[in-house]
Order: sequence, then C-alpha cells, then structure tokens
Amino acid sequence: MRAIVVESGQAVLRDEPQPVPDKGEVLVKVHLAGICGSDLEILKGYGSFEGILGHEFVGSVVSGSSTLSGKRVVAEINCVCGRCDMCSAGLSNHCRRRTVLGISGRPGVFAEFVAVPERNCNEVPDSVGDEEAVFTEPLAAAYQIIRQVKIESRMNVAVVGTGRLGLLAAQVLALTGCRLIAVGRNKKTLAYLDRRRIRTVVVNEFSQFGDHDLVVDCTGSAEGLAFALKLARPRGKVVMKTTCSSKTDIDLTPLVVNEVTVLGSRCGPFGDALGALARKQIDVASMITCRMPLSEGVEALRLAADPEHIKILLKVSA
Amino acid sequence: MRAIVVESGQAVLRDEPQPVPDKGEVLVKVHLAGICGSDLEILKGYGSFEGILGHEFVGSVVSGSSTLSGKRVVAEINCVCGRCDMCSAGLSNHCRRRTVLGISGRPGVFAEFVAVPERNCNEVPDSVGDEEAVFTEPLAAAYQIIRQVKIESRMNVAVVGTGRLGLLAAQVLALTGCRLIAVGRNKKTLAYLDRRRIRTVVVNEFSQFGDHDLVVDCTGSAEGLAFALKLARPRGKVVMKTTCSSKTDIDLTPLVVNEVTVLGSRCGPFGDALGALARKQIDVASMITCRMPLSEGVEALRLAADPEHIKILLKVSA
Repeated sequence: MRAIVVESGQAVLRDEPQPVPDKGEVLVKVHLAGICGSDLEILKGYGSFEGILGHEFVGSVVSGSSTLSGKRVVAEINCVCGRCDMCSAGLSNHCRRRTVLGISGRPGVFAEFVAVPERNCNEVPDSVGDEEAVFTEPLAAAYQIIRQVKIESRMNVAVVGTGRLGLLAAQVLALTGCRLIAVGRNKKTLAYLDRRRIRTVVVNEFSQFGDHDLVVDCTGSAEGLAFALKLARPRGKVVMKTTCSSKTDIDLTPLVVNEVTVLGSRCGPFGDALGALARKQIDVASMITCRMPLSEGVEALRLAADPEHIKILLKVSA
Repeated sequence: MRAIVVESGQAVLRDEPQPVPDKGEVLVKVHLAGICGSDLEILKGYGSFEGILGHEFVGSVVSGSSTLSGKRVVAEINCVCGRCDMCSAGLSNHCRRRTVLGISGRPGVFAEFVAVPERNCNEVPDSVGDEEAVFTEPLAAAYQIIRQVKIESRMNVAVVGTGRLGLLAAQVLALTGCRLIAVGRNKKTLAYLDRRRIRTVVVNEFSQFGDHDLVVDCTGSAEGLAFALKLARPRGKVVMKTTCSSKTDIDLTPLVVNEVTVLGSRCGPFGDALGALARKQIDVASMITCRMPLSEGVEALRLAADPEHIKILLKVSA
C-alpha cells in the first residue's frame, strides 16, 4: 500500500506492506487524514519518530471485528497495555507501555490502511460526515482543556495562538459562555474567529496583561509559555498545549512570583468531540483550506507549514 | 543607623537614616536577620532591587502600636494596599501595588531598624526563641506547599534541592506522613535530613523517575524544573519554589505529554510556621552554621554562597 513515511527527518511516499492486525486489533481502510502541527514537529525531530506518519483520520473497518465491520470509525491514538499502574488508575492515556499512532512506536494513518486496537475505535454517527469526523482527534484535545479546568462564566479566558488547535480550543471555550479572547498573529485565522463572533486581538496590540483567570497556550512555539504567563493573573491557570521540537530560554519567575498553575494538556475525550460535531456546535468545514490525494502527501506537508493554510486533508480513499 | 545596602549589584555596609513609620506602620528594632537564597539572587540582579537588603528577621516593636509596643514580632514581607482586585479577592500576597521588604520597593531588614505595617506583624510566643523565630518567613514558605497541594499518606513525594528552603520543606512534608524522599547534592545537608530520619538520595544515584505524585523544586536553580519534571508521574504535580536571576533553556515537552501540573509557590502562612516552631516540630537550630554581627554582613553574604554553610544569621541587636 502507499504511505507517507518519515525517515531521517524527511517525508517520503513509499510502498509499505499492508498491516496485519494483532489480536484485539481491527484493520481500517483510511478515508481521510488530517495534517497536524505535531506532524510538522516530528519532521523537525520531535520524539525521534520514524515510520508511517499521521494520527488524525476517519476510515472504515475492513476486518477484525464483528460489531464494527463496515462501520465508519475514528480512533483514539494511544494504544495501551491495560495492565500498568497508569492503566489501572484510569489514566490509560498515560500507559507506561503505550504506543501512539504515527507518533511513537506504531505506524500512523497517512496510508491506505492502518491497524488499531478495536477498543480505540469510536463509530462515527451518520450525521457526521468524513470531513467533520477527521477533526475528532484535535477537537478532543481541545475538549481536554475544559475537562482539566472548570470554566465559569465570569472567568477571563485567553487562547493564545490561532492555528489549527487554537481555532478549535477557542470554539470549545466559547460554548462555555466565559469572557473569551483569542490572541494571534495570523489575520486569516483571526478573521475566521471574528466570523464566529469570538473576540480577537492581534498579538502586538494586546495589552490586558496579568488579568486572565485562564490562558491556553496553543502557539505551538517554544516562546508560548512565557507569553501566556504574562497574561495570567496571580493564582491564575495556564493550560499548555504546545509540544515542539525546540527548547526554550524562558524566565519562569512569573510562574513562581504570581503562583500560577500550569497544566500540561494532551489528548482528550473522543465522545465529547463527536457529540459536538453531531450537534454542529463546532465549525470545522471552513478550516479546510486544501484537499490533496495521499500521493501528494509530501507536498501537502510542505504546504501545511504555510500560515495561509489552516487544515490540509489527505484524501486516501472514498 | 547601620545597614547592608545593595547598589549596582554590590552589597555595602553604610549609614542610612532611621526609617520613619508611615500611618499604620510600626518601627521595629531588628534583633536577628537571616540570609536567604533570594538575597544572593538579588545581588546577581534578580528583580533589579536597590536599597537595604533582607527580609527574614525577628525584632521588637519600638513605636507605632499600643498593643504590640515592646513585643517581639516577626513580619510578613508583602506590604499591601488592601483595596485592589487581588486584596479584595483575599489574595493580598498578590496585591497589585505591593511592596516587599528588601525585595521590591521597600527597605529590608539588614539594618538596625525597619518600618513595617502593623498588620504584617505576628507576635512571637515566649516559647519560641529569637534563633527559632527568625526562621518563620522561610518556614511559612515551606508550609505554603501543603496549603497548595493536599498531601495523602500514600503519596510519593520528592523534595529536590536540600538547601535552606529544601531542608524546611522536607521537614514540613515529613510531618504529613507521606512517602518522602529528599534529593540533593550536598552531603552535609543530606546528612542533616538523615539525622531527622528523612529518606535521602544523592542526585546522581537517583533512579526513581516518573513515579512521584508530588515533586517540590527547591533547587534555586534554573535547571530545577526540568529535573523535577523527570521525577513526576503522569498527571503528577510539581510545586516550584525556585526564583532565580537566570533564564533557563528547558524542554517543556514532558510537562505537556505527561500532563503534569506545575504550581508556582511563594510566601506562606506565618501562623502555621510559628505554631510548628512553638510545638518544636521543626528543627531549625542545627541549620544555623554561623552567626555574625551586622557590621560583617557583606562578608556574611559572601559566605552564604558557600555550600558548607546552611543558614547564616546576622546579629543586629540584643
């Protein structure tokens, strides 16, 4: 089968053997896959991953399950042991022996087929089209923010960074009714939020420092935390979503002096995301700026680094 | 009066005018003052402070209060407005207009006299001697840790850094009955904890990574957070006590991937600290490695940077 593979920091289109599902796994025919900021970071060296790239996808189950056979599914990306201390404590996303689709120790989804544990699969409701369902994984990551921090309507909340994840995080937070502002550089994505009636500001015009109960760092940049710490009020919270390949030279004094709480935040609840997509509460359609065939995946990854593009989808099969 | 003053990054012994208390302030004759890691950081440029250094002290009230006159007191270091949003929210340690004794906008205590707001003063019980009371401020900072994080007996807790603050933090945490280990470089301070029956390990012999529910960074070093993040379990907590003048080049990926919560932690409850000193629950006496007169304060600050010394006290008056 054709696949986009990372080797020596380069993405290449290659023929790979079709995966053979292990016990408990299903074989999924990939319909659509989404390119994420993490994919670009992996190409820069993040996590030292080599193999088939990609983790955002929707597909249909070909074999390995009687209940899911032929169904459209999305799949959680952490493949877990179910037995370690983290799994036993209900924290299986932090399984000590986990592999992660297209990120760590397991082939990803920029391929015609992928094998995933059956228990990772969530059936996609008929009302959710493929071009919506493909956003389930990043939207779940956005929902994780409001799982970790209880949002109240009087709270001042800032989302910093209006890239792919920032746009989803801002929409999820807007649903809570909090006092929300999105801070970004990219006029195109700020305009997208303006159209959704979410208050925005260009980063160099921002002045409301030290006054936010919650700041969400979606910059994807090593400097994001330092800026987020400036926005947070004393005893405020920062949810940090950024994972990137570079280190950062950061002054952590405001974290201590202002007794800010910083919460690392990674994957989230697929059910919340699929539910919101089914209720049409989150606009993902207008985030799609480009659709390309898998065979042009290498070029698609190059384009995805361009701020003109929000979400690029790889069309793998019908 | 004589005082140790910071100017242009140097500590000098100088004659300064005796302070005149403002409305609501008392004049305190300083008995003893303690040298803290923050004082050394200020000399390296932290906070750009200039003026009389020092914030740990015990003294007696000379004037300005009918109830406290002649009494021995310790004083909280944050001098607050009582009216801003933080003060109104019960977070007066984070007052927007605060000054801080010997740290920010207000003369410190390495002097014969200091003026402090009466409401900052806590009378010292007779059972607590001057050489114990002088530890109230740093001990309160240690108690802040268990105010911020609920400790349970089954929790694995690590204190990283066994300097002045680390020794107090470890003793406070030991009182909770948690599974505690102190990780340090300094054989002398590790031996001090061994004698208190607190489990210790030399940093380069430490191997229990990824398994601590709570890690307290008392390193005072810019690299402390990176090390603390390695010790924390997924979804664990790091309390960060370190404020230092240098920036740090840090990989924050483990914070996000392991969804660790980092809590900045600064000043703490004086009442808890004085209570523990009165109950003789915390050994501070054997932390004192040197007593010097105020007139030798510049030399005392130089000595305090030597790991051979734990706490150096400045004797100001009887």
